[in-house]
Parts: sequence; structure tokens; C-alpha cells
Amino acid sequence: MNKQRLEAFSDGVFAIAITLLILDIRLPEVEYNQLKTSLPKIIPNLLSYAMSFIVIGLYWMFHHQYTDRLKRINRPFMFLNLLNLLIISFMPFPTSLLGKYSFTTIPVLIYGFTLMIANLTGFLTVYYVTRHEDLSDGLINKAYLRTQYPMYIAVNSVYLVAFVVAFFAPKISFAMYAGVLGMLIIRALKNRDIAVCEPAKPKYTSATSSQPV
Amino acid sequence: MNKQRLEAFSDGVFAIAITLLILDIRLPEVEYNQLKTSLPKIIPNLLSYAMSFIVIGLYWMFHHQYTDRLKRINRPFMFLNLLNLLIISFMPFPTSLLGKYSFTTIPVLIYGFTLMIANLTGFLTVYYVTRHEDLSDGLINKAYLRTQYPMYIAVNSVYLVAFVVAFFAPKISFAMYAGVLGMLIIRALKNRDIAVCEPAKPKYTSATSSQPV
Amino acid sequence: MNKQRLEAFSDGVFAIAITLLILDIRLPEVEYNQLKTSLPKIIPNLLSYAMSFIVIGLYWMFHHQYTDRLKRINRPFMFLNLLNLLIISFMPFPTSLLGKYSFTTIPVLIYGFTLMIANLTGFLTVYYVTRHEDLSDGLINKAYLRTQYPMYIAVNSVYLVAFVVAFFAPKISFAMYAGVLGMLIIRALKNRDIAVCEPAKPKYTSATSSQPV
Amino acid sequence: MNKQRLEAFSDGVFAIAITLLILDIRLPEVEYNQLKTSLPKIIPNLLSYAMSFIVIGLYWMFHHQYTDRLKRINRPFMFLNLLNLLIISFMPFPTSLLGKYSFTTIPVLIYGFTLMIANLTGFLTVYYVTRHEDLSDGLINKAYLRTQYPMYIAVNSVYLVAFVVAFFAPKISFAMYAGVLGMLIIRALKNRDIAVCEPAKPKYTSATSSQPV
Repeated sequence: MNKQRLEAFSDGVFAIAITLLILDIRLPEVEYNQLKTSLPKIIPNLLSYAMSFIVIGLYWMFHHQYTDRLKRINRPFMFLNLLNLLIISFMPFPTSLLGKYSFTTIPVLIYGFTLMIANLTGFLTVYYVTRHEDLSDGLINKAYLRTQYPMYIAVNSVYLVAFVVAFFAPKISFAMYAGVLGMLIIRALKNRDIAVCEPAKPKYTSATSSQPV
Repeated sequence: MNKQRLEAFSDGVFAIAITLLILDIRLPEVEYNQLKTSLPKIIPNLLSYAMSFIVIGLYWMFHHQYTDRLKRINRPFMFLNLLNLLIISFMPFPTSLLGKYSFTTIPVLIYGFTLMIANLTGFLTVYYVTRHEDLSDGLINKAYLRTQYPMYIAVNSVYLVAFVVAFFAPKISFAMYAGVLGMLIIRALKNRDIAVCEPAKPKYTSATSSQPV
Repeated sequence: MNKQRLEAFSDGVFAIAITLLILDIRLPEVEYNQLKTSLPKIIPNLLSYAMSFIVIGLYWMFHHQYTDRLKRINRPFMFLNLLNLLIISFMPFPTSLLGKYSFTTIPVLIYGFTLMIANLTGFLTVYYVTRHEDLSDGLINKAYLRTQYPMYIAVNSVYLVAFVVAFFAPKISFAMYAGVLGMLIIRALKNRDIAVCEPAKPKYTSATSSQPV
Repeated sequence: MNKQRLEAFSDGVFAIAITLLILDIRLPEVEYNQLKTSLPKIIPNLLSYAMSFIVIGLYWMFHHQYTDRLKRINRPFMFLNLLNLLIISFMPFPTSLLGKYSFTTIPVLIYGFTLMIANLTGFLTVYYVTRHEDLSDGLINKAYLRTQYPMYIAVNSVYLVAFVVAFFAPKISFAMYAGVLGMLIIRALKNRDIAVCEPAKPKYTSATSSQPV
């Protein structure tokens, strides 16, 4: 019942953050005869729009997945959730930089840093639940967390490498972030037999791929 | 239960995308004595606002209609839905172009292209459900799809013709998009006896008109 | 169940439209030492922000009230509702004009016109329900409508007079709109004994004041 | 049932206001080679973004908490709630000023004034419920209010002092607002054993810390 309001509020923030991304796709103020030549300038914006849309979408799915398993919520959980939403809501800013300065070093560094902080706050929220098993249905526990570590470490290691790569080759760095995203999507799709939304009979071995970060 | 969160998130995105359209109706920065003469300049913006508001509204109704029939959702469905929302959220951009360059070739081409991609992603989502009948109440099946094809092909054929027409006569092209929209509304209204929201006793023969694309 | 999604979508549009109003309260780009002298310039924006916030809030309450009584919805209702939302979503534009050109003739005319169209589309939606009693719990019927007419006619008559007054004295015209709003609020508050949200035992005689238009 | 729509609408406004804050974090229009030197300029914007995000988040939790205890709502409550939302929705404006004029006197004064008005409207809403015990489960009563007064008076006294301090030392004034916020968070976290969302067995003595204002 009350968990539903936390979900509704969080869903609202996710939905708004994801939809506000479009506000950054704007053509420079040009006359119609220059429109054709100025259109290619927004290609970086389109790419970063699509990228961030899918990133926020994945975070939403992940949020959906672990809040589904909660029985009750307490204040520390609410604050951790709020902190996580603070970073998700922040996404339109690095996305905007990426589009404006087409995948150069500084924007890619900021984008990567934001993704890592988003992962961290998401992880802390889940970690808190594993330490307070009375909050969940008992299935978000330490054993569950252990199955998540390899994926979590792999993803964030690539992110860290990509962060360093951004100093030399920002476009390759961005491609690495996009690559991780693509792999997470493929991994998630492989488990297509497992309905995300059937709470019954969870299997940890197959749930490992649920960490979208 | 969990389907409800997908619906809530999607409803949020639809509601925000439709409401963000207004942000593009802005007068040029003029003194009050020039306000009267500059007002007619926003007529194209008003037209494209109304058009896109109704387009997104129709997509929402359509989304509403097929998600109502779902029993459960899985990851591929979620991704297809996300892809569909990505295009819906994109609508404010072509709408803005239409307003700014009052129905000239390039904006009308981009607008038409966006509509066709929106139709395609919507179609793929429904198609996926027809191929996985365990997701729905069994009524979004191949037989249902067959009843939808004529309408779907008709709409998109007109869209394709309108796309080509835009190169020569963009205003006529836009009128064709608006015309299809008008016909879909009339068709939907004719079935007024069928409550959209009574899930019981669906009749395919009469449901054919439900494809708003 | 399905009515809930129409409510959720509509609530979303109302909530977004009402919150987007703030985007128009922006100071001119001035240095800090000029900030103090430029602050009074946003007083008209603050006034029109508060006015439109309460106007949209009242429309939301009114929407809330009649959709509560619906048992089912059909397509024409959905279209009428969409048309009503189109006008509600439009409100930030005339609000912005009012602020920018501080209550001069043209903005006040556009604002008043928007209010009248919003009333009209709201009225048409309710009227449609009274003509299709199978949609509601039977209490939004012709008898109910008759109790609403006096208020509806009074409000819109004042609006019409205010519309004409705007040509000569726009500030008085705006005061008339604000006055009607104030009276509707007082009238609504007088019925404080009647819980808006207790669906049981509706009394038409006391419900007359529920028309916020 | 109907209370849920008020909650949904309010949650929507909170979620949108909190997410709109990001729209104000914008870099000046500079070339890439100047990007590095212009980045530090947005630090005040980042600070005020984080501050207001958490402020609105706390108001949402507080709103969540007292509406949870409501059994029914009436019109005066709806208007008080609307007034409270009007101030919450206003938050992006003072936040934007704080960022633009980095914590100077006028922005800090406006920010503090907004917080105090937000507290006042929130208090009036709760006060109204305590005077109409038929609205709540009986637990938001005068006894409850008495337990809230010390915290309410303490918080607003510090705010008032901070308001005066802003004339001489605006950064210290802002630090005082942030300090109160920090203390409210710590206080709220201390009560971690009390699930915010378990409506059963409320204890006033421990609920005292729930006033986030």
C-alpha cells in the first residue's frame, strides 16, 4: 500500500527525467535555407538522447525489479532511494554536454562519472535491503548479492577503464559505455523465458543478469 | 500488479511528452506594440501543437488498449515498449520544427518519418505479444493481427505517399497526415457502442478499428 | 480498473501542466547589483503563476469529481477528455503572456478566451456523460445538469463581460476572472461538511457548487 | 480510493518539481576549449540542485506520512494541499537564483522565505486535519500536534535567524538552512527501527521526528 507511493513517486521521477531528455534536442536558430546543412549538427544530440533514454530505462527496470520484492520500507531506504533518484534526475545534464560538445573528453568523463555514481547509489540501496532482510521477501539477501557481484564488478571495471580511456580517445570511451549497455540488454533478453514480473519462484542463478548497471 | 508499474511508467511518459509540447509555443521577444502583428506567427505552432497532442493521445489510447489485455510482461516486451516510448518522447522535436518552419519540406519529412517509426515500434510491440500468447489473455493473437493488417497497411501506405508528396507540396503532405488522423478518430468514434474499457467479450470484427496508427 | 488509467493519465497531464507554470518565472539576465531593481518586474509573473496554478487546480478537482462517478468509459468520452486536456495543457502559454506583458489587453483577451474554451470542453465532457447514463452511476444525469446550468451560465456570463472589458480596462478584466475564481473557491469551501470524496449519498442541491468553472 | 487520486496528483507535482530542478543546470554557451574553465561556474548550481532536491524529497516524505493517516478528504483540505503544492512547485525559481547569483543576499533571502512559507502551508494543512479528526484515523489530533510544536518552532526559529543573517553573511545563512536539513535527516534516520510505512501501532513519542520542515 504505502510502498506503492514510493514506487509511484520514483516512477514519476524516472518518467520525467527520461522525457525531459528531448528538451535538449534543439536546432540552432537558422533560416530555412540553412536548415538542411544544420541538421547533421544534432546527430550527437540524437545519439546521446537515445543512449540516455535506454540508460534511464534500464535503471527503471532495475528499480522496478528490486522494489517489487520489498514488503515494507523505512526511512533510510527512502533516503537512499532519494539519493539514487537525485543522480537519475541529473542525467539530462551530462547528456546535454555530450550532444553539445559531440563526445569530446570532458563531457564523456562527466557522463561516465555520472553512470558510476548512479551505479553506486543503486548498489547502496540494494545493499541496504540485503542487510535488512525484514524489508524484503527475504530473497534480496547476502546470497543474492553474491550472485550480483561478478556482474557489478565487471560492469564498473569496464566503466573505470572507459573513464581513463576518455582522456585519450573519448569516442572509444563512449563506445565502451554503449557496449556495456548493449551487452546488458542482450543478457537481459536471453532470460526471456523468465517473466520479469512474475514474483513467484525466483531463481538466483538466472536472476544474475538482472543488474542492468 | 507489476504490469501496473509498466503502465504507470508508460502513462507518465505519454502524459509528460504530451504536456511538454506547450513549451514550444513561444512568442518572439517583442514589445507590446508589436505583439498584435507577431501573434499570427505562432499559428503554425498552434496547429502542430494540436496535431501532436492528438497524435500522442491516440498512441496512448492504443497503448492503453493492448496493455489492458496483457496478463504478464517479460523483458523483451519491456524493451520494445521502451523503444516505442523513445519515439513518442521524441515527438516534441519534429513538432517544434513544424511550428518554426511552418510546414515546409524538411520538417514535414521528419514529422512523417517519426510517425512511421512510431507506428513501426508500436506494431513490433503488438506483434511480439501475438507471438507470445502466454503474455496476453489469448485474444491478442495471430487472428487478431490479421484483422489489424488492412488498417495498418492502409495507414502506412498513405503515410508513405505523404512522405514522397512532402518533397513537392509539404502542406498537402501534412494535410494527408492530418486526414489519416481525422479518419482514425471518426472510425474510433463510430464504434462508440463498444466501451474501450470493458475487457469482457471482445469482438475482433469490431475491434479492427482500434488500431489508431 | 481501466477508468483508473484514464484518471492516471489525466492526473499526470494536470500535474505536469500545473508544475510547468514555474518555468515561466525567470528573471532577466542581469548582474547582481541590478537584481534588486529587476525583481519587481516578475510580480506580474508571480500573480499569473498563482492564478493559473489555482485555475488548473480547480479544473483538476472538477475533473476528479465527475470521473469519480463514472462506471465505465468509451471512446467519445476519451476524445472529449483529450480535448479538455489539450486546453488545460495550453494554459502555460496565456499565463506566460500575462506575465510578460503585465495584464495588458491582448494577453488578458487570450487568457479569458482560453478559460472559456476550457469551460466549454469541460462542459461538453460532462454533457456527454449526462446523455449516456450507462457511463456513470446514474447520478450525472439531466437533473444534475439542470442544477449546474445557473452556475455555469453565471460564470461564463461574467467571463464574457470580462472579455469585452479587456478591450478598455484589461486589469479590471483580469480582476473579474480572479473574482469569479475567488467566489468559486468560497462557494466550494462553504460546502465543507460534504466530503468531496465520499461517493455515497450525493445530494444534488448541495453539489451545485461543485462546478468550478 | 479517492484519497488515492489526491495522492497521485500530489506525488506527480512533487516528482515533476523535483525533476525540473535539473533544467537550471546549464553551462554558459562556450567553445570546447573554454569548457574546462567554465565548469566551476556551475558548482553553485550543483549545490542548490542537491539542496532543493533533498528539501522537496523531505516535503514529499512528510506529505506521504500525514496523508497516509487520512481516511477521507474534503474541499478545504484539498485547497490547503493545493496551496502547499503551489509553494513546492515554486522551489525551482529560488533554486535557480541561488545558482545564478551563487549564494548572495537576495537569493538566500528569497530561498529562506520560500522554505518558511512552505513550512507554513504544510503546517496549516496538518493543523486543519487535527481540527477535523473525522478526516484522519484519529491519530493526527491535538496531542500529536503538541508533540510536533517543539520541532516546528525550533526549525522555524533557526530559519528566521538565518533569514536575518542573510543580510550580513548570506553563505552562513545558507549553511544554516543546510544544517537544519542535515539535522532533520539524521533525526529521521535515527528512528530507523520505525518503518515509515507501517501504519499500525504509531507511537507519538517517536513520531516527533517526522516533521521534516
